[in-house]
Amino acid sequence: MPCRTRWLIPSVLAGALLASVAPAQAQVANARQLPERTVPVPSTISQELAEKAVALPVRVLPLPQTDAEWKVAQKSLDADRAQTARKTAAAVGATLKEQRIAGVRCFEITPREISPEGTNRLLVHVHGGAYVLGSGEAGTLEGILVATACGTRVISIDYRMPPDHPFPAAVDDAVAVWKDLVARHDCSRMALFGTSTGGGLAMATVLSLQAHQLPLPAALFLGTPWTDLTKTGDSYFTHAELDNVLGRYEGFLEISARLYAGKTDLKNPLISPVYGDLAGFPPTILVTGTRDLFLSNTVRAHRKLRAAGVTAELHVFEAQSHADYLRAFPAAESREVLEEIDRFFDRHLKP
Amino acid sequence: MPCRTRWLIPSVLAGALLASVAPAQAQVANARQLPERTVPVPSTISQELAEKAVALPVRVLPLPQTDAEWKVAQKSLDADRAQTARKTAAAVGATLKEQRIAGVRCFEITPREISPEGTNRLLVHVHGGAYVLGSGEAGTLEGILVATACGTRVISIDYRMPPDHPFPAAVDDAVAVWKDLVARHDCSRMALFGTSTGGGLAMATVLSLQAHQLPLPAALFLGTPWTDLTKTGDSYFTHAELDNVLGRYEGFLEISARLYAGKTDLKNPLISPVYGDLAGFPPTILVTGTRDLFLSNTVRAHRKLRAAGVTAELHVFEAQSHADYLRAFPAAESREVLEEIDRFFDRHLKP
Repeated sequence: MPCRTRWLIPSVLAGALLASVAPAQAQVANARQLPERTVPVPSTISQELAEKAVALPVRVLPLPQTDAEWKVAQKSLDADRAQTARKTAAAVGATLKEQRIAGVRCFEITPREISPEGTNRLLVHVHGGAYVLGSGEAGTLEGILVATACGTRVISIDYRMPPDHPFPAAVDDAVAVWKDLVARHDCSRMALFGTSTGGGLAMATVLSLQAHQLPLPAALFLGTPWTDLTKTGDSYFTHAELDNVLGRYEGFLEISARLYAGKTDLKNPLISPVYGDLAGFPPTILVTGTRDLFLSNTVRAHRKLRAAGVTAELHVFEAQSHADYLRAFPAAESREVLEEIDRFFDRHLKP
Repeated sequence: MPCRTRWLIPSVLAGALLASVAPAQAQVANARQLPERTVPVPSTISQELAEKAVALPVRVLPLPQTDAEWKVAQKSLDADRAQTARKTAAAVGATLKEQRIAGVRCFEITPREISPEGTNRLLVHVHGGAYVLGSGEAGTLEGILVATACGTRVISIDYRMPPDHPFPAAVDDAVAVWKDLVARHDCSRMALFGTSTGGGLAMATVLSLQAHQLPLPAALFLGTPWTDLTKTGDSYFTHAELDNVLGRYEGFLEISARLYAGKTDLKNPLISPVYGDLAGFPPTILVTGTRDLFLSNTVRAHRKLRAAGVTAELHVFEAQSHADYLRAFPAAESREVLEEIDRFFDRHLKP
């Protein structure tokens, strides 16, 4: 992406336009005080989205202290997720087959109908869940929806997670599976995708593939990706408690981030990929919502991709909190997200 | 845009997935209560953007009651805006020439350097200002920046405004100027653009051009467009007082909307173009920010354009309130917006 300079003004004039600059402390000093407020469910969304997502209270998540408590919480939360995934697979007629690829447990998801252009394609999925949830079938819901929307088979990677397997196990597993798959498939017919942690992990996987000079996916879908595991970015502050899925950074998100990272710096690009060099990334579609705690995580990644010259398109959905398009399926807005992904992959993957 | 249906599930199964629906009143009943909060200036933006925009307190605007009070307020506010425009024109080396086109006062803006691909192009600008501000040179700042960024001449339309000239004077003037210009220029080399009210007016102008079967622009830039003049849309509620440019709907925005609309319904598509049929619109680039009171005005228009099969791309900037890219120029983020516009016009306009 050539940086044009014809409209850049001489720095002496820029100085004049930037007259009366405040001292450096301005960034800290000028915090905005916002009064309490009542935010209604807007009239600009479907009834289904309202009922299944926007109108719900803020989700309460557990705060495990020990490894044993983590495992109890994981088992309990994932049981619900697995049930939703199975119910959805049955409803859309998708089938799941467990298998091992490069020693990593995966689910091969076959939609009811494979489209002509999807026949030779393969989509690879890394699930969300703050690097602690989504084990087993619990991590397959998004893979089922995208497989069905695109009429394409999906391999969903059941990567290892903490407390037993902190960073870099998840990235290592994703890279190992990708490396195995790409030895048998044409990477120009393959995409990588995921939402939340899955979006961040997809980016970390691409960074790692680049470092190992392995073939890259032909396209990425990053749904409201967790690109910064530190509390950095505007919407961590502006959308706290407005997002009824994540609530706020303090609590489940923060302890999950620390459990995953272990002793590694949270700003390591393989943990917080917004700090990585994104040059050479594949064409990327990003999705978020106007109430998403990760709105900034998403738009910062979008801007960084654009600045690196990457084809990257952004879709922001009215009133959606974090990943509402997944829990609200089959609301009209969920189908709209899936249609955008299908069209994007269709433009960037060979048939 | 063909609507794919392969992943649509039988409605009986959709019903099962949508089990336990709440009563219709859910949309009203489940408002979210947000506690008061402190929102710091984020570390994820340039120092220039912080100092010139994000760190500033919420702007206080007058609330004129009579036509005479309106005229006093307009004169005072526009004097400041005109000074900024003149200062910027001098800094970037652009020149302004006042002229009449189809009886409407316009400014022809010539950048210091006209690019090879911009030589035969013409960009047409409608300014912002809530349909009440931006008269004369006060409305030319954005035109100066876009002309300079694109290396292309701009005609900025100084359309008539209330209190003397309410709706539909602004639309009539924009259409009259466009009609005159397309008689002399190739519309495949012309774009239409504006921010805020200018974005909404650009959409209303296209709707009116379609109704009159006149040639359309080859591309649109809609900066945080005022697409809904009623208080409808999530961010009118979620970003009230967070946006330090607009503050909230109640007050200046609301009285300006009513002054402009007069006795016409605010949901008339030529006033609130998000209610219009956007099929057949030109390729469109939209820009907003994570603190923008018009975030929903922008993303609702983006979604509606996409649903109508229009090429439409969205850019959301970290921590920006309404149209911060204009007041923060020459901050890095302002230049980034202008570069995106330049590239978008370059892709969609003939040289």
